[in-house]
Parts: sequence; C-alpha cells; structure tokens
Amino acid sequence: MEQSAQPIGVFDSGVGGLTVVRAVMERLPNEAVLYFGDTARVPYGVKSAATIRRYAREIVEFLVGEGVKLLIVACNSMAAVAGEEIRRAAGEVPVLDVLETGAQAAVATPGVRTVAVIGTSATVESGAYVHRIAQLAPEVRVVARACPLFVPLVEEGWVDHPVTEWVAREYLTPLVAEGIDVLVLGCTHYPLLKSVLTQVVGEGVTLVDSAVAVAEAAARLLAAEGLERQISTAPTHRFVVTDQPPRFHALAERFLARSLPKVEWVKMGD
Amino acid sequence: MEQSAQPIGVFDSGVGGLTVVRAVMERLPNEAVLYFGDTARVPYGVKSAATIRRYAREIVEFLVGEGVKLLIVACNSMAAVAGEEIRRAAGEVPVLDVLETGAQAAVATPGVRTVAVIGTSATVESGAYVHRIAQLAPEVRVVARACPLFVPLVEEGWVDHPVTEWVAREYLTPLVAEGIDVLVLGCTHYPLLKSVLTQVVGEGVTLVDSAVAVAEAAARLLAAEGLERQISTAPTHRFVVTDQPPRFHALAERFLARSLPKVEWVKMGD
Repeated sequence: MEQSAQPIGVFDSGVGGLTVVRAVMERLPNEAVLYFGDTARVPYGVKSAATIRRYAREIVEFLVGEGVKLLIVACNSMAAVAGEEIRRAAGEVPVLDVLETGAQAAVATPGVRTVAVIGTSATVESGAYVHRIAQLAPEVRVVARACPLFVPLVEEGWVDHPVTEWVAREYLTPLVAEGIDVLVLGCTHYPLLKSVLTQVVGEGVTLVDSAVAVAEAAARLLAAEGLERQISTAPTHRFVVTDQPPRFHALAERFLARSLPKVEWVKMGD
Repeated sequence: MEQSAQPIGVFDSGVGGLTVVRAVMERLPNEAVLYFGDTARVPYGVKSAATIRRYAREIVEFLVGEGVKLLIVACNSMAAVAGEEIRRAAGEVPVLDVLETGAQAAVATPGVRTVAVIGTSATVESGAYVHRIAQLAPEVRVVARACPLFVPLVEEGWVDHPVTEWVAREYLTPLVAEGIDVLVLGCTHYPLLKSVLTQVVGEGVTLVDSAVAVAEAAARLLAAEGLERQISTAPTHRFVVTDQPPRFHALAERFLARSLPKVEWVKMGD
C-alpha cells in the first residue's frame, strides 16, 4: 500500500485519547485512524516513569508494525515522560504529541503573559509542560496544578454536575488569582469539562485544547510531507484495545461523540 | 520453618489493602504479614473479569511460593470475580476474603433487615455481595450502589472535605431512603471515609468495615487450626509491590496509619 494510504496511529493509556481521534476525524475527514487504547493498564498517571516508558515502547512497536504513516501520542503522561523512547521506537515514522502541540498553541495565543497548565499528577510532576513552554517563550510565566479528580468525574459522567464545578473552583481558584490568560487542558479527558472550566476561570481566559491543536499540527505535517491520503472513498478506522471492561463502549462513545465500530482486542505485556 | 511461624499473605490491587494489614496488625500483633500490592496494574475495579482472574492467579502463585500460612484477599474486586481461581491456586493454604467476611458480619448485625453495600463498579456489578448475603440470610433485603468517586477522593486526601460529603450524599441518599440499617464498606479505601459516611447515613446505621471483619476471621481461623505464631520476638513484616509510583509512600502510610518499612519490588506479568 502507498504510504499516504496508511492510517494515522493515535495512542493513549485508555479511552481519553478518543477526544484526539474525534479532533483528527473532524480536521482530516479523509484520513484513516488506527487507535490504540491500553485499557488493560490504564491509568498511566499513577505509574512510575520507568513503567510508562516500557508501556509506550511496546505500543509504538505495535503501531509501527501495523504500518502507520504518522504517530500521535494522545496521552499527556506518556508525552511527558516517554518522549525520547517513543521517537526512538518510531524510527522513520514522524511523531506528534499533545504536550508539544499544546505548549506551542499556548505560547501562540495573542497577548499571552501567564499560562496555567492542568493535568494528572504524573504530567504535572514531570514538569514537562512548564519546561517546554519556558524553552519556547522564556518571557511567559507558567503555573501548573494537578487535578486528579477530573478524570474520575468525567468517567462518572458528572461533566456538568455542581460537585464538578466545586472541585474545579478548589483546583483553579489559586490559578485564577495568579492572573492567568491561557489555561492548557493537559489531559485528554478535560475537553469534556470545557463548559465548567470556562465558568470557573471566566471568558477572558483562553482554553487550549491539545486535541484540537495536535489535529491541526497533523494536518500541516501531512500536507508538508505529501502524506495526505489521495483515495476518495471513505476511510476505514480501527480501534484496538488491551481490555474491554464493563461500560467501555458507552464511555468510548461519549469521548468520540459518535458510535464506535467493532473493537479489536490485543494482548500486551502481561 | 514451622508452618505457624510463616507469614499471613495479604493482597490487593494497590495500597487500599493496607487498611486490612492495619486491622490484622491490631488484632494479631504477634503475626508476621507479607503484603502484596499490585501497584503497577491498579486499579482492578475498571478491568474485565477475565483480566482480574488472571492477575489474581499470578499473585496467589507468588505468595504461596513465599510460603504463607494463610491468604487474605484484601481486594473486593478480586474476591467478587476471582474467588474460585484464587482458592484453586491456593491449594492447601486457607483463604479468607473481605467479601465473605463482610457479608457474614452484615447478616450477623443484631436486628438487621436491610443491608446496603457500596463499592467500586466492578464489585457492585458482579452482584457478589448481594448474592452471598441472600444465601446467608434470605430474609434480609440487600441494595447496592457503586461509588466510583470515593477512591479518587480518598487518594486525593479529601477524607473530610465538604466535596466528599456532597458526593456521599449524592450516592447514599437513595440508600438511606430505603431504610437501611447496615452499610457494608465493600472497598478497602472506604474505612478512611467512616466519619463522613456516618454523618450522611446517620448514627442509627451500622457500618461494616470488612478489614476489621476479616482480621477477626483470621484470628479465629489461626486459633482453630493451631496456626498461631508461637515465637515471642516481634514479627518481621514485608511489603511487596509491582511498581512504586510517585507519592506511594505517603499514601501507603495514610492507609497503614504507621511508618512503612523498606518496600520490595517484583516484576509481574509485564
């Protein structure tokens, strides 16, 4: 098969990366997506960096073996701690990740002075966003805060529940007090909380959705490398997971905002 | 070594089972404990039954290989879906689990008529508590409710936060309306929420703490089988985990309510 006809590989520790798939499908409707969700080993956010690196390498080897033309790391925890391993395992295949594109989108916001990054404990404790934003725009001030309750609240479906707004106020009020003008959603679950987050931080703060940012970066990269799919028939998407727990389908469809085709199962690691 | 001198093996998917270790240490201060926490693959509550069974078998084989004289399943999700596999893998080693002892303690409560069971989605959806209580006491009515936000709230340290009380009211008000007289804490994290739970359900409802119940059952079993440790020197405890994520020590010590000795790491599965 022509390289341009090959799918874009998108991977995450679980279902959260489907918000990236959704953004890619909207931005690049002619491209085929091969999604890999490591649902047997989710969540990565509470695991050690060494473990996350090992898992990331295994997934990349699988996707490269399937012939993907581009890899999108849709997991902030993996992007934060396993970027080097992923690019080494990817070989010739180009790699985009939500962390790099999110950091770039944050500093590209007109008039930006103070950026806040929110994410899982692993992502925030890695310091990767703060470090990268400081490299890209040393004059921009960056603050960060782990929001560990957001993922379970989204998975419980409480995306517009008053408890979620209260939790968001607890987490974000100290950031708002810093006078932030950009809030980076450094976790793929967080786009589902956009309306609550906007209520809490106010309309004046720009939300950076890494899913949208990475889909845009993918469109630019495919065009630049001449890797756009040339076939006009509708692309076939594939969804591969390492486990199918109860309620997987319902949750996946909430993230993807469309019905899910047949899901394939692969055994990995254990 | 004499069989009676061997440790009691206690295992869980993560750190939650340390509430069981704490109860065992308090009830049986002369016994050595070998704790196994599968911290690389936590949480089990969101995984499929087939995956949980496979993990449980691997852990039991490890602990039996270490020569434990008694196995305590300190994970409700494993007890709910992998009871048979665990007992088969245990061979001659007796097995106690938090689910069985919790169900027995619930029906033994004086004047019990309606029992509510709360736990993770996996535990509640398995129906194992409801089924077992119905077997033990068919005249007792049982209701159950998954409370998926309690574990992340405990791990965030919000054990007496107003948000936690609000979440508890959301989950438990429908149970209170059923006129329950017993509330079974069907998850090892929940004993840390006892004070909030009592506020919400009222002093008239008896809380069944499975950790305390299983420690009591262990004391009876060791006495009946002549397996009590006869040596008067202080026992040496061991803590084995499959991963040591950030903040593991702080979290473990909160559950154990004492300082943690050196922790051993073993590789399992992947």
